[in-house]
Amino acid sequence: MRIPLDHQSNIPLYQQIEDHLRKSILAGTLPADTRLPASRQLARDLGVNRTTVENAYAALEAGGLVFSRMGSGTYVLPVYSLPSIPKNNADTPWPLWQTSLQKNTFANADIAEDMLQASGHPHPISFASGISDARQFPVEEFRKVIQSVMRRDQIDALEYGERRGYAPLREGIARILASQGLQTHPENILITAGSQQAIFLAAQVLLKPNDIVLVEDPTYSAALDLFRTLGFQIVGIPVDGQGMQVDKLEKLLQLHHPKLIYTIPNFHNPTGTCLNSARRRELIMLAGKYNIPILEDDFVGDLRYEGHTQPSLKSLDPGGQVIYVSTFSKMLMPGLRVGFIVADGPVFESLLNFKRLSDLATSTLIQRSLDAYMTVGRYQTYLHRSSQIFRARRDAMVTAIGRYLPSSVSFETPKGGLFIWLQLPKSLSANDLLPIACKEGVSFAPGNSFFIDGVSGRDWIRLNFASQPAEDIEEGIKRLGIVFKRIKTKAK
Amino acid sequence: MRIPLDHQSNIPLYQQIEDHLRKSILAGTLPADTRLPASRQLARDLGVNRTTVENAYAALEAGGLVFSRMGSGTYVLPVYSLPSIPKNNADTPWPLWQTSLQKNTFANADIAEDMLQASGHPHPISFASGISDARQFPVEEFRKVIQSVMRRDQIDALEYGERRGYAPLREGIARILASQGLQTHPENILITAGSQQAIFLAAQVLLKPNDIVLVEDPTYSAALDLFRTLGFQIVGIPVDGQGMQVDKLEKLLQLHHPKLIYTIPNFHNPTGTCLNSARRRELIMLAGKYNIPILEDDFVGDLRYEGHTQPSLKSLDPGGQVIYVSTFSKMLMPGLRVGFIVADGPVFESLLNFKRLSDLATSTLIQRSLDAYMTVGRYQTYLHRSSQIFRARRDAMVTAIGRYLPSSVSFETPKGGLFIWLQLPKSLSANDLLPIACKEGVSFAPGNSFFIDGVSGRDWIRLNFASQPAEDIEEGIKRLGIVFKRIKTKAK
Repeated sequence: MRIPLDHQSNIPLYQQIEDHLRKSILAGTLPADTRLPASRQLARDLGVNRTTVENAYAALEAGGLVFSRMGSGTYVLPVYSLPSIPKNNADTPWPLWQTSLQKNTFANADIAEDMLQASGHPHPISFASGISDARQFPVEEFRKVIQSVMRRDQIDALEYGERRGYAPLREGIARILASQGLQTHPENILITAGSQQAIFLAAQVLLKPNDIVLVEDPTYSAALDLFRTLGFQIVGIPVDGQGMQVDKLEKLLQLHHPKLIYTIPNFHNPTGTCLNSARRRELIMLAGKYNIPILEDDFVGDLRYEGHTQPSLKSLDPGGQVIYVSTFSKMLMPGLRVGFIVADGPVFESLLNFKRLSDLATSTLIQRSLDAYMTVGRYQTYLHRSSQIFRARRDAMVTAIGRYLPSSVSFETPKGGLFIWLQLPKSLSANDLLPIACKEGVSFAPGNSFFIDGVSGRDWIRLNFASQPAEDIEEGIKRLGIVFKRIKTKAK
Repeated sequence: MRIPLDHQSNIPLYQQIEDHLRKSILAGTLPADTRLPASRQLARDLGVNRTTVENAYAALEAGGLVFSRMGSGTYVLPVYSLPSIPKNNADTPWPLWQTSLQKNTFANADIAEDMLQASGHPHPISFASGISDARQFPVEEFRKVIQSVMRRDQIDALEYGERRGYAPLREGIARILASQGLQTHPENILITAGSQQAIFLAAQVLLKPNDIVLVEDPTYSAALDLFRTLGFQIVGIPVDGQGMQVDKLEKLLQLHHPKLIYTIPNFHNPTGTCLNSARRRELIMLAGKYNIPILEDDFVGDLRYEGHTQPSLKSLDPGGQVIYVSTFSKMLMPGLRVGFIVADGPVFESLLNFKRLSDLATSTLIQRSLDAYMTVGRYQTYLHRSSQIFRARRDAMVTAIGRYLPSSVSFETPKGGLFIWLQLPKSLSANDLLPIACKEGVSFAPGNSFFIDGVSGRDWIRLNFASQPAEDIEEGIKRLGIVFKRIKTKAK
């Protein structure tokens, strides 16, 4: 092989060789599986040092252009590009089984986001999100933690973990829960891929298609989507300022014999209300009397800005009646995808098995890093900080609403959590409002997506006050006010 | 507050203050919510520099013992320990719904591992594992990749990702698949938490309880566990040296009207056989004729040691008939939990929705890191290296079997993959053998766990030759030989 080399150039010789070979490979003049000359041979041909050639080959291999088989030489790897045209062109009819698949029409939570982005507004402000502010998270600190964990655990950090999840993390969670008045044991904790998987596992283990699940109406829309997709029948219990109207529960239990009660007792999504203590005890009592498990979704129970905490349902559990699910995603980082289930009794083993069958395990590296990052104190410090920030943002939104929205809107100031649940003036529909608001550069979650029938709540909207800085909150509500006026005048 | 300080000591003053306060907090003499004196105040009391006190407070806060509220001061955090006694003591009866839960009795793959560990053998050797050798993985390199990714993407690396998965990773996978003769598009790829979740999603989307799934008998035991747990009826097709006996397929399709055909056409688990080309085309043809989707599990299709590759079923797919699942876990790191589905047609949207409902998304950080680590060339180089190593190990096991096991055992040398499927002398039962083998310090997967009835295959064992270095393979098989002899003599 002849490679033109410039011994005067300040480009190192090995690099000149590498460049030449790379060009030939990419150009296809050195096709796949071509055996490159032995380094000794090429070195002689080019009158260079053998190491020079070896360095060039090493650089090519690092670049993924060649590979070396011990003893047998260095070979050119195929250069791949994506096929230019789709294999399945539009006129291929799909198999029958495909066309007969169950269609899921979700009250898609992303609609508002997409609409807002599509508006092309220079400075869009979203109040539609279901999570808190990721920008609060100390990424740099966490990066260092992951580092130290991988240095410490090496290959273990990337192996399958224990089936329940990384033991030290489960211990840490047990301590954090203890600090919140929920006494449990690491053996009763199952780490999941976020609380979404936690709810999913519980639903799968406890119900069959056509079974009935009882939920607050309105409730978390992704839970509704999940229950629908799994073929459950959904029965609703109305919510008031004190949370689920438990006084209406017993009649529903007798009427429908549900297999599960799904509830969000703290800073309910979307209404932001908390279930009062009397109702908590009543709920536990009734669930026991009618032998129905309770799935307690405590997604932001510890994000309280004033007033005193209520005991979690799980902490009132006489034994095995309540399955508790929570997450680090809302408080910390969505992308971490780490949630957990607290359950006792035979159901724990069922949950464990179903977790194994659905994805074997949750990323051990993330679990170990979270454990290394989390101490009770650190979590609490972080929680205190976040609470201060989110409280200020809630107040900013309440003030802005008073300043920019008509007095005909109504809402109760939430004592914690992420959401303000706001009722529009009767004449307005959230779904008519949304596209116009998005054009104006502000979005929200329309109320109907949280109701079982998907129709009720058209005069309600959910505003996330935790995800934006105060100045954006003021600006966003101001924009909303403008939209309100415009529609009013239209209505006239 | 009076803190005894030793100005002569070589322990820095701030640290003496920190130590004193920590002791008091842990001892409870400074209870939770106690407000520490303002740093200015304490500095005056102690006659030290104010920064000294501030450093002490900062150290305590970093340790999670106190937290500072801006403007309002520094407060002691509660010190938590785990509850000493379990809340639910044994004599609490569980609720009825718990005792009536469906019991899943799995042919648990971990049994062999546990038994081996329990044996307390000084140097246990496991051939029971279902995965390749994690020790091959360049952890250190991957650690650096994660670093650069977090430095590059900051908070984005920890946010929710796209619903399909990280786009560049899907592009990379499309290129790797193209290099294996499967032309697809990134939009037709869905990233999952390992191939286990991929199979799970497909099963959930395509079948309802009591629907019938057709599988090779024997087949991947975790798939059997999954199908059973989801309440499917499982019908088996026998396997021979050429893979699934497709000639028997049509009668079964007419008889059972299955809703899905699940198959492992390459280096089948557990038998290690490959489906020949004629049968591949026949299978596709029949699936189309009877309108039944094929779920192609290609968990180690690219781990070939000799012979030429067969086209994947998906690459023969006339359009939308085959759902292809594979994974990086087997080849690279189990703990990464990254697999993927290739599907086209309406079913893709259904899979996407179900993924969202089951866990929202797969860790974005891992996806981004894998993308940064993976280039086609790099993957292929890695694959070539692994193939060389695993081929050598396969040969080592074949040799060892010839040397140490009675000639009455029989097996076909697999051309790739991870497993040797070995038939024992008629007189022997794998399940009788296992405990004795474990005592001797060697384990394997008993054959019956791969059969639908859980009973057949008692005279078969699955040996993983890829997970152990050659010297351990020889030693392990040698031990197995000893156990064989012992049982034989017992039998006499």
